[in-house]
Amino acid sequence: MQDESLEDWLERVDQDYLAHISLDCVVFGFHAGQLKVLLLKMKHEDRLALPGGFVMKTETLEEAAIRTLRERTGVENVFLQQFCVFSEVLRSDPATRPDDLRRIGISPEKASWFAQRFISVGFYALVEFSCVVPRPDWLSDTCDWYNLDERGPLILDHDRILETALHTLQSQLNHQPVGYNLLPRKFTLPELQKLYEAILGKKLDRRNFQRKIFSFGILRSLDEKRTGVAHKAPYLYSFDLRKYQKALKGGLQGGW
Amino acid sequence: MQDESLEDWLERVDQDYLAHISLDCVVFGFHAGQLKVLLLKMKHEDRLALPGGFVMKTETLEEAAIRTLRERTGVENVFLQQFCVFSEVLRSDPATRPDDLRRIGISPEKASWFAQRFISVGFYALVEFSCVVPRPDWLSDTCDWYNLDERGPLILDHDRILETALHTLQSQLNHQPVGYNLLPRKFTLPELQKLYEAILGKKLDRRNFQRKIFSFGILRSLDEKRTGVAHKAPYLYSFDLRKYQKALKGGLQGGW
Repeated sequence: MQDESLEDWLERVDQDYLAHISLDCVVFGFHAGQLKVLLLKMKHEDRLALPGGFVMKTETLEEAAIRTLRERTGVENVFLQQFCVFSEVLRSDPATRPDDLRRIGISPEKASWFAQRFISVGFYALVEFSCVVPRPDWLSDTCDWYNLDERGPLILDHDRILETALHTLQSQLNHQPVGYNLLPRKFTLPELQKLYEAILGKKLDRRNFQRKIFSFGILRSLDEKRTGVAHKAPYLYSFDLRKYQKALKGGLQGGW
Repeated sequence: MQDESLEDWLERVDQDYLAHISLDCVVFGFHAGQLKVLLLKMKHEDRLALPGGFVMKTETLEEAAIRTLRERTGVENVFLQQFCVFSEVLRSDPATRPDDLRRIGISPEKASWFAQRFISVGFYALVEFSCVVPRPDWLSDTCDWYNLDERGPLILDHDRILETALHTLQSQLNHQPVGYNLLPRKFTLPELQKLYEAILGKKLDRRNFQRKIFSFGILRSLDEKRTGVAHKAPYLYSFDLRKYQKALKGGLQGGW
């Protein structure tokens, strides 16, 4: 999308893209002990929106999601997964949507394409905060990180999409490892615990956390300490990627 | 669909249904120690197919899936859940599909509607075998239960859809309860173990199974034994539905 003008893209939108199907990406990042989400400030209204897109006739949903994520963040090869399809009949208000779009210079014929019913496939992505260069799309002024609990209300059903993604991520903690895409390559146990606490929205007991996280066997203890800290320097860890991938596929509990 | 003729339905298919979006249902049942799946024998070819359908412009995906399941099985209010969207660009062969459809009396104009690209949302359902009255659809001769490991090859990407559903069900065993919709209301522990073994495709150690399943706290021990069996009569159990539903939402392991 980004390499052509909005006019060129609009000219061919109905030929190049599938009708009725869209996707929305909930992009989670972690910074300064906070869980963050990437949101767009729309041109035509005050509420924020999840990054989203349409599916080209020549691509799969996954390819469309990877393209959307690359366009908004500059990153690739991150954890990116379908989690739910949102198909309420009146996800958007067909009466007001074309007006909003006309206000930013989209012609009535093209606006009607956007006003059709879209069933949206939700993807969630886990990305390393420091690697992302957020970029707005044609319909937005800015693209930025927001603290999950300090964001304003979102457009359409995007609040529900975001809440469902967060719930999926929370339950993922119970049976799959999380962290590889959210933390730098080397991290301390308190940093990993802070990530879990930010996702779950609650404090965890330090000793129980460490006992449980070690029992999964996915951590590799490094022979290094975090330097430049005031108090006792904490040890650094990284993920054992082979075991991490295995647990991602087969589950953490060892199963039946 | 079933209350009108194929001709009437075809006449309005493009007005009543969303283009590009379909759904497929993997319906699992359990009988005589075997995991079964409901499949249709197509009129126009030898391979079998999953029950599927399209989404009306006035309904959500979930409503379309419930309708499809009711039409094929007669049952409602069962475990039915989206698990994955399948969006390969060439899921069906656009060159041969219209021919197949013409062979069963669908006109070329209508056949072209079926030949468009469909992105299919996979649902899986867990149903009690004895409650189901399988019914074929317009494009099929029969609808029947098949043993999971004795079925022939399926049409399109339906083998992949079925395998993905089975994999989802297998991982569900690690963090959610399974069984309520697949077993009769009262069951013995060996019957529950056989269900788990059928899903996982492997034998489980009896003592480990019982220790683990009791630790979840979802079973209610009944003051009854199975009658009419030759050897020592085994005790009957049912699920504690309140705890079962809680574990279905929050996970079995108690979480963090």
